[in-house]
Amino acid sequence: MKLIRIGAPGEERPAVRTDDGRLLDLSSVTPDIDGVFLASGGVDRARAAVAAGELPELDQDGLRVGAPVTRPGKVICVGLNYRDHAEETGAAIPPRPVVFMKDPSTVIGPYDEVLVPRGSVKTDWEVELAVVIGQRARYLEGPEAARAIIAGYAISHDVSEREFQLEYSSQWDLGKSCETFNPLGPWLVTADEVGDPQSLGMHLSVNGVKRQDGHTSDMIFAVDHIVSYLSQYLVLEPGDVINTGTPAGVALGLPGTPYLRPGDTVELSVDGLGSQRQTFAQA
Amino acid sequence: MKLIRIGAPGEERPAVRTDDGRLLDLSSVTPDIDGVFLASGGVDRARAAVAAGELPELDQDGLRVGAPVTRPGKVICVGLNYRDHAEETGAAIPPRPVVFMKDPSTVIGPYDEVLVPRGSVKTDWEVELAVVIGQRARYLEGPEAARAIIAGYAISHDVSEREFQLEYSSQWDLGKSCETFNPLGPWLVTADEVGDPQSLGMHLSVNGVKRQDGHTSDMIFAVDHIVSYLSQYLVLEPGDVINTGTPAGVALGLPGTPYLRPGDTVELSVDGLGSQRQTFAQA
Repeated sequence: MKLIRIGAPGEERPAVRTDDGRLLDLSSVTPDIDGVFLASGGVDRARAAVAAGELPELDQDGLRVGAPVTRPGKVICVGLNYRDHAEETGAAIPPRPVVFMKDPSTVIGPYDEVLVPRGSVKTDWEVELAVVIGQRARYLEGPEAARAIIAGYAISHDVSEREFQLEYSSQWDLGKSCETFNPLGPWLVTADEVGDPQSLGMHLSVNGVKRQDGHTSDMIFAVDHIVSYLSQYLVLEPGDVINTGTPAGVALGLPGTPYLRPGDTVELSVDGLGSQRQTFAQA
Repeated sequence: MKLIRIGAPGEERPAVRTDDGRLLDLSSVTPDIDGVFLASGGVDRARAAVAAGELPELDQDGLRVGAPVTRPGKVICVGLNYRDHAEETGAAIPPRPVVFMKDPSTVIGPYDEVLVPRGSVKTDWEVELAVVIGQRARYLEGPEAARAIIAGYAISHDVSEREFQLEYSSQWDLGKSCETFNPLGPWLVTADEVGDPQSLGMHLSVNGVKRQDGHTSDMIFAVDHIVSYLSQYLVLEPGDVINTGTPAGVALGLPGTPYLRPGDTVELSVDGLGSQRQTFAQA
């Protein structure tokens, strides 16, 4: 099932997107798509309501698409998790996941405008597979237990400012946490519908020029390993988002380092998860 | 004014602590001490209600003290911000603030039990001055503008697991984000009552042995500089917490590296902000 949130920022309505592209209003089932919904069997309730034909169709003309979950309690990122991306940045293959965080308030809708920070000359793109957590978890017993607490997946754009991230200090969070730096969506696709998260192609182009063309089979640490690993050190909560890393092809690793400028348009897709499109503007 | 939250986790009631140690129930003024309260003139409304004698006294016998603000949208940390602590860890004096994050769900009350993570042998202490943001802020014009958006201050215990932080990857967040790793409080002391945040002594002892004895005048980057600096790169929101760094005396820098073990008790204080006390237990 594909879950979506539709409406102005802060006023999104929850909906189900059907395979033929209609939107069914979920407001009678839940006030929002959030951790409470995910952890309380909300997906099953939504599925039952769809099957019973209980949900009215939403007119989506002109309506904004929000992120498919409410503001997460945290956004965890795994860095350098694709072999080709680690190589292009000159980094060694990490022996353990490299874990950092983004400010959760950076999460925006998949077609919202993204702001190039004032003073930025190194704003960069990163298409990623996002994991959305469905149940509270600590000290999971391994990858199989991890799979059981994943609600689903979405496209995440882990926008990054390389000067702030890499040149200002040893710690990356500052250059990952600028305003609007995490477009998410358009849908939360439930784990059962995605199937194997390690079999997804992922693509990104800038102004129509293909820049990233990767595959989740190239991850150094697989999704279920990441979730199990993280749970040994911190508590995962329903609605938390994990960005699982980006493949090669970011501006930092390309000849001429063609960083993003106001007016540029970025399009992203991940197999089965839809596509995003953002235009960049000056903050 | 000193603001406090009293009651079981998730069920705290807001209150004002008077200078003679009584607690006045703020429930008639606000449902909680959070970003909405701070950004909407809540402190002024609380002050007026106290002055009018409108607030009933709370019986505090046996009541738990929670963190003095609800779960923050983010917890930002500045690392290596005291000259003597940078030296004891072998790090150079940083040219810019070193910015990283803690999982906001690590915030607990000032007397709550803290958990030593499973597998941890390097759990460490850090007394810090926390800044609580009172207004949304981006691209502040400088330190003076920064002072205007600070709601107040509290003691923060930035508990840290050094193996997870420093040995597992280049990024520190993992070892800073373990369950229960951010006791906060007991009070949020409003900025007007604190006066100069660079004139506060800060102290920490473990099992009665003094370990940290620092002073906020030794910060490399002052509070107002930090807040202004951060606002150039990310959006600060009401209720956000900034941990501004720790002075020398952590286990990592001491002979024999006497890391914390289950059963240990840590006591912390910052001048004018009260004191904390936590017993450590095995996760």
